[in-house]
Amino acid sequence: MEIKKGDYVLLLSPDEKTYLVTVEEEKRMGTHLGELNLGEAVGSEYGGRINSNLGHPFILLEPTLEDRMMKVRRLTQIIYPKDAGLILLKTGVKSGMKVVECGAGSGALTIALASAVAPDGKVYTYDRSDRFLGNARKNVENAGFGDVVEFKKREVSEGFEERDADVAVLDLPSPWVGIPAAAEALRGGGRIASLSPTYNQVEGCVEKLTDEGFVFIETIEVLVRNMKVSRGKTRPFERMVSHTGFLTFGRKALKESPKPGVLADTSNGTQ
Amino acid sequence: MEIKKGDYVLLLSPDEKTYLVTVEEEKRMGTHLGELNLGEAVGSEYGGRINSNLGHPFILLEPTLEDRMMKVRRLTQIIYPKDAGLILLKTGVKSGMKVVECGAGSGALTIALASAVAPDGKVYTYDRSDRFLGNARKNVENAGFGDVVEFKKREVSEGFEERDADVAVLDLPSPWVGIPAAAEALRGGGRIASLSPTYNQVEGCVEKLTDEGFVFIETIEVLVRNMKVSRGKTRPFERMVSHTGFLTFGRKALKESPKPGVLADTSNGTQ
Amino acid sequence: MEIKKGDYVLLLSPDEKTYLVTVEEEKRMGTHLGELNLGEAVGSEYGGRINSNLGHPFILLEPTLEDRMMKVRRLTQIIYPKDAGLILLKTGVKSGMKVVECGAGSGALTIALASAVAPDGKVYTYDRSDRFLGNARKNVENAGFGDVVEFKKREVSEGFEERDADVAVLDLPSPWVGIPAAAEALRGGGRIASLSPTYNQVEGCVEKLTDEGFVFIETIEVLVRNMKVSRGKTRPFERMVSHTGFLTFGRKALKESPKPGVLADTSNGTQ
Amino acid sequence: MEIKKGDYVLLLSPDEKTYLVTVEEEKRMGTHLGELNLGEAVGSEYGGRINSNLGHPFILLEPTLEDRMMKVRRLTQIIYPKDAGLILLKTGVKSGMKVVECGAGSGALTIALASAVAPDGKVYTYDRSDRFLGNARKNVENAGFGDVVEFKKREVSEGFEERDADVAVLDLPSPWVGIPAAAEALRGGGRIASLSPTYNQVEGCVEKLTDEGFVFIETIEVLVRNMKVSRGKTRPFERMVSHTGFLTFGRKALKESPKPGVLADTSNGTQ
Repeated sequence: MEIKKGDYVLLLSPDEKTYLVTVEEEKRMGTHLGELNLGEAVGSEYGGRINSNLGHPFILLEPTLEDRMMKVRRLTQIIYPKDAGLILLKTGVKSGMKVVECGAGSGALTIALASAVAPDGKVYTYDRSDRFLGNARKNVENAGFGDVVEFKKREVSEGFEERDADVAVLDLPSPWVGIPAAAEALRGGGRIASLSPTYNQVEGCVEKLTDEGFVFIETIEVLVRNMKVSRGKTRPFERMVSHTGFLTFGRKALKESPKPGVLADTSNGTQ
Repeated sequence: MEIKKGDYVLLLSPDEKTYLVTVEEEKRMGTHLGELNLGEAVGSEYGGRINSNLGHPFILLEPTLEDRMMKVRRLTQIIYPKDAGLILLKTGVKSGMKVVECGAGSGALTIALASAVAPDGKVYTYDRSDRFLGNARKNVENAGFGDVVEFKKREVSEGFEERDADVAVLDLPSPWVGIPAAAEALRGGGRIASLSPTYNQVEGCVEKLTDEGFVFIETIEVLVRNMKVSRGKTRPFERMVSHTGFLTFGRKALKESPKPGVLADTSNGTQ
Repeated sequence: MEIKKGDYVLLLSPDEKTYLVTVEEEKRMGTHLGELNLGEAVGSEYGGRINSNLGHPFILLEPTLEDRMMKVRRLTQIIYPKDAGLILLKTGVKSGMKVVECGAGSGALTIALASAVAPDGKVYTYDRSDRFLGNARKNVENAGFGDVVEFKKREVSEGFEERDADVAVLDLPSPWVGIPAAAEALRGGGRIASLSPTYNQVEGCVEKLTDEGFVFIETIEVLVRNMKVSRGKTRPFERMVSHTGFLTFGRKALKESPKPGVLADTSNGTQ
Repeated sequence: MEIKKGDYVLLLSPDEKTYLVTVEEEKRMGTHLGELNLGEAVGSEYGGRINSNLGHPFILLEPTLEDRMMKVRRLTQIIYPKDAGLILLKTGVKSGMKVVECGAGSGALTIALASAVAPDGKVYTYDRSDRFLGNARKNVENAGFGDVVEFKKREVSEGFEERDADVAVLDLPSPWVGIPAAAEALRGGGRIASLSPTYNQVEGCVEKLTDEGFVFIETIEVLVRNMKVSRGKTRPFERMVSHTGFLTFGRKALKESPKPGVLADTSNGTQ
């Protein structure tokens, strides 16, 4: 695959530092191993190399979803790939779906959601802060998903404007404030995911989800540990990120009988 | 969203047991809480309920990617969502991509890959066992991805037939046997993911990836712990799955200079 | 070391099952691998063997502190060695010390504490339940620490009878109820350890410790994962105990100035 | 308990920094919160305070076993309390026992072992490096266990001089080199503990232990995660030490029949 002008490329230095850059003719970039002429990348294949003026080769890689998420400009704690990956699988977000999200954070999770619904789906991302919204928008555009995401400034307590959403994602200091809005925006069977760093938030979140009729509620923590691998001396890394947040998931059940003619459900109490 | 005949539905019992079933007129199904008439689900909304003949309500949910993976018929240890989620983010598989996979296992990871490349991409899944291939194929078809996956019977040492693949995924007892085949099938910058339960496999895998010119190699372990959440007595679960496998990732660098006219890379030794 | 009548011996079967037994002349014991005559162990060395009547050898091992803890008769969830070990190191319990404990549980932690203060120290263990107290006492006596531990029936809210204790250990549903009692029983600089399964208990515990003037408070969770080791296929176990409890530690600071003549501490507020 | 001249005291600053110091008349010590006159501590109670010349109170605490271990002067990676605690419980080291250890490291584990065997037991600690031996000796003496530990300079391959040891502890780059020496030094039923950072070492260690007739072999990894506790916002710490080493344990079985007159064990092969 040939690299074109305007492409987003991940440069890998010989000492495994990475740079996410837009390739342009005659664009120069300084690194700790000399200066690169990014224009040289135009017409190269991914996996190929360009050399710095000091002769160090930098490998031209295609950015993955993880690269795009991890390289956003951060105004907030970002959602990590370990958490985003499980959110995608557990909510079942896929191409063509409609997703509502609040807050925007730095847009890292928005990028993951956008990538999953692209090209025909849509992510509606809300935040009450102009500053966060602006930064998230720019990060999402840089990652190439500007068309897939719509940003809106609003308090979550005022509700989402969308209806029949497939998935709702909350990253809020008081998740319970956003849950009624999510319940209203979601269609029957729609999934919700909420991220919170403290167990107190989780407790309030699960309680509110139950009140709002969500079912199949679970709370999960994801940990990743990297390994140093080399022949004869393989071992886990000595330090790791030991907490980002707890993930809570649920699914929207309909409150009343969905079909005319079905008898009233009198056994509800057994739940 | 209205449920139609032939739809794949996740039934949730009042005591949180789940059943993944195909909805058909007059199809009856026994459960520990009485008999269900699945035909009643036709025309219902997701999130709605049908009652068993003993009056217990079962909620009709739309299966997520996780549900589809976890409910496959298992002839092998399956890949868990926690691992599949990170594989998706780290390989950057997305709609339209070409993926090669070996072996098929029970098809759980194939389903996750198929979901990510759908509708226009393709997953080519190899295995040398007719039995595994047949079971995986059936699981993938049941999950609704029959069109997106092509199954092939072959020893991985004979190579993949595809070229210019975006992503290669290996789940092999001897991952090093499949790495040359993956290197040949991948385009420059393409990503590889390998799953192995033992440290020894990881060591051999990383060594072979390095020999074959892969770069940006990392090995990771993902752990998830669930939490019991209830007001005033929230705590982690007492038991968990503490190991499934280690995940090793890498990216294919091109061996020679990708562009005519670029000087020979003499600084290679600094890598 | 020669085994004598009345000694407590850990029997290890060929398939790695263990039995903690008292050796007596002509005592017979049935196992899944045949019957043993425990009298044969008298006069043997630890590390030696006796055979069952079916010819299977059982190895005679000296019980460790872990064996004694794990083999208690359980009426409650017991404290695990992973947690007890850290409690010993963090409280600095040692030979000759005075320890107060509430509740008794099944006596597993009492055994660990008794072993640490023996031969000249003392553990005072309180519980309000006759049944738990009786079971714990019997377990502690079986483990050989009957002389080192005194059991008392009492509500913790009524306080410990001891003063100038070096260490206080609480395993209570409402740890905050026992903290004033512990504060009263401990000498200046004395250490407290509290065990609780839930986040909520930890929150209340830390708050009460702070109110009562404890300092250097920390809360810790200990996890252990076992490894399956065999040449060429070494890997972590697939299942583990993922939660027993959180451990909270603190040290008792004196409220007023400990020495006549020292000026009043006016900078307290900076803490 | 009154602090005397020469006592080892842990000072806790208002911002929770700790200093392990020997108290002497007129000894002055600079801190980030002003200068302390340690002589003021003489005659104080533990739990009391002395003020810096800037008016900041420092609390006088009695050092625990953990404090003594963590405050050693480090020339090597030290053994952490989480690991040392489990070693104590699993080997059953207690007052009066004879322990052999190689290598000395920085003496942190030696301190834990010495504390457990004190006052009547003995730890024999070997190392081939004068530098490590000297540093460990000084750390052990500072911690108050100089009488309980004997240091010897020797290659472990030459064997321990002691016989009938209760426990052997190895912290060696090639643990298998020390295992025959440990097997020779231990009495029947004696316990061995070996610490290694890599899985490769573990593999070789377990293999050698099996060859040398050790039984009940297990390998374990201990992880601890700290928690930030405060009312309404309690959460795990974001970073942790994710690997120190793997711990391998075993017990020495006697090779031949321990008692005259017992028939030859013909069923050995079933093990």
